[in-house]
Amino acid sequence: MPSSPRTVSLAVIPGDGIGPEVIAEALKVVRAAAPEGVTFDTTEYPFGAAHFIATGEILSDENIDSLKQHDAILLGAVGGDPRDARLTGGIIERGLLLKLRFALDHYVNLRPTALFPGIQSPLREPGLVDFVVVREGTEGPYVGNGGGIRIDTPAEVANEVSVNTAFGVERLVRFGFATAQSRPAKKLTLVHKTNVLVHAGGLWQRIVNRVALEFPDVAVDYQHVDAATIHLVTNPSRFDTIVTDNLFGDILTDLAAAISGGIGLAASGNINPDGTFPSMFEPVHGSAPDIAGQQLADPTAAILSVALLFDHLGLADAAARVRAAVSVDLAARGDSARSTAAIGDAIAGAL
Amino acid sequence: MPSSPRTVSLAVIPGDGIGPEVIAEALKVVRAAAPEGVTFDTTEYPFGAAHFIATGEILSDENIDSLKQHDAILLGAVGGDPRDARLTGGIIERGLLLKLRFALDHYVNLRPTALFPGIQSPLREPGLVDFVVVREGTEGPYVGNGGGIRIDTPAEVANEVSVNTAFGVERLVRFGFATAQSRPAKKLTLVHKTNVLVHAGGLWQRIVNRVALEFPDVAVDYQHVDAATIHLVTNPSRFDTIVTDNLFGDILTDLAAAISGGIGLAASGNINPDGTFPSMFEPVHGSAPDIAGQQLADPTAAILSVALLFDHLGLADAAARVRAAVSVDLAARGDSARSTAAIGDAIAGAL
Ligand SMILES: CC(C)[C@H](C(=O)O)[C@@H](O)C(=O)O
Ligand SMILES: CC(C)[C@H](C(=O)O)[C@@H](O)C(=O)O
Repeated sequence: MPSSPRTVSLAVIPGDGIGPEVIAEALKVVRAAAPEGVTFDTTEYPFGAAHFIATGEILSDENIDSLKQHDAILLGAVGGDPRDARLTGGIIERGLLLKLRFALDHYVNLRPTALFPGIQSPLREPGLVDFVVVREGTEGPYVGNGGGIRIDTPAEVANEVSVNTAFGVERLVRFGFATAQSRPAKKLTLVHKTNVLVHAGGLWQRIVNRVALEFPDVAVDYQHVDAATIHLVTNPSRFDTIVTDNLFGDILTDLAAAISGGIGLAASGNINPDGTFPSMFEPVHGSAPDIAGQQLADPTAAILSVALLFDHLGLADAAARVRAAVSVDLAARGDSARSTAAIGDAIAGAL
Repeated sequence: MPSSPRTVSLAVIPGDGIGPEVIAEALKVVRAAAPEGVTFDTTEYPFGAAHFIATGEILSDENIDSLKQHDAILLGAVGGDPRDARLTGGIIERGLLLKLRFALDHYVNLRPTALFPGIQSPLREPGLVDFVVVREGTEGPYVGNGGGIRIDTPAEVANEVSVNTAFGVERLVRFGFATAQSRPAKKLTLVHKTNVLVHAGGLWQRIVNRVALEFPDVAVDYQHVDAATIHLVTNPSRFDTIVTDNLFGDILTDLAAAISGGIGLAASGNINPDGTFPSMFEPVHGSAPDIAGQQLADPTAAILSVALLFDHLGLADAAARVRAAVSVDLAARGDSARSTAAIGDAIAGAL
């Protein structure tokens, strides 16, 4: 079924380190997989650590307004050398990545995990790995609501506040249930630490209990975050849809990526389901300055992020084709080392 | 070298579920391994979920005063059926376990991880696994400094505050450096999330940087908590001494236990290094009500906690003997199922 003609305005932030390399391949796949009649009109933005060092600009209100004009954003990776004194305290991560998540109300951070055929897990017997983490993206300990007194004295106190609202948790939990309902296993696991973080945990648990009544076909359970890490390495098949807070989701999705072949394959979508603002798609990996510019990076995570972008744009067939092409490429990979561009060409060529 | 005659006053809290079963075996090992001239005088306390349900008492100030009279505490596991409405919100965990950690100033939560010969890791190629997590025990998000407003309404806000002090972080970091210095690899890794939790993370990083100057023979590095979970499953050999906050330590030590054979083998010490209050030793596992009373629990974690107790009492030879006996038993285990008592008898008998 041909889609009706349409132009998608895509903002592209290649970023730092390996970002531009993986984005170049992702864009090949965008073009190769776009259904007939759907045109992608891309605008590149220079943001990142290098841009900050060169210009002093991280992300201004005008920049954000400009990004808002697009239908979606594709981001490579941002961040420079962690030892660079000009970049300490996560200034780029917070001033760019997290700022975008907050400014564009990306309250769903969607991170699917699947062990593709041919990929060796570090686990001896991974079994079937196919789950998705629905991570909250605009609350929790990420709100920047902390501070210190008597800094750098023996009497220093430094606090960090995790802020959780019924508004924020409920919309995320609803998205989680809808996600679970759309999957064959129809199982939702809330992950939190309700036995210690009783106020936030109580809010999450009560909202899950309540929303669950509207989704009687979805099975629901709960795990403490510490126990969840055990299950992720001993029995990942037990997971289908994990719903969790911003920080726990950050931790669990890196672990999830590790057990399914590494962050070279892990895609993510920072989604504003309401469509008020453009959603943003990015590989889970960082800018890896140590291997940048050498065509050593695996563009697969960026390419799988394009599949999430297609899903979000309602182009489910194109998304499925991208995943199928990735799957074929991964299955044939073996031990041979290919350049970033060779991998991108192979996947784009198979489309 | 015989120790001088001495009586150690040991408080024993068997607790709930499998707690009493594993503690019975741990006490056999205490008796079998105690050096000549060292007598253990044990006093049993009934605290736990069952005691709370029967009496309404969790842990009173008088109970704490009584526990303070002892040289050390051995705890099995506490907690009842998580679906029991009388036990929601971690009332036992917080009212008993965490209350003791705070009241007895257990600022070091020491959790060694080793893959014993004969134990199969869920990792395909674990390599050498031999590290220790030095987890902070009295600060961070565990302080109970949270609250909610408009609870159970659509306008609810629930906050949790992580409190970190130079006082608390520095004493823990010093213990971490001393631990690293005592180990062959002499390597300390700070784990935090400094790019997001900048105030707390900054405090931890600055204190590590400063104390490091006093330990020039200890190599120091840093990892974000999310990245640390990746390394724990792809290359655990890179870790020697991990120093981290209360919540990150909780998560990482369950994962560490999983990769090294499961929480059935993971020991922990809640330590007050100053000796002002008795330290407490407990397996990392919970009360596992589903398998309680059936002699199905593995007492090894409780027995290895006894080794930590011996270490703390300055009985290093006895500690080493316990670990050696456990190691021999684990190497011979194979697939045969033995009762809790049979495992305890075998280890105690080998001493
Ligand atoms: C770079 C960092 C701020 C970010 C996060 O913690 O969310 C990253 O780890 C991620 O998971 O996207
Ligand atoms: C039971 C719970 C409160 C506790 C913790 O979170 O510290 C446990 O998970 C542990 O690690 O000892």
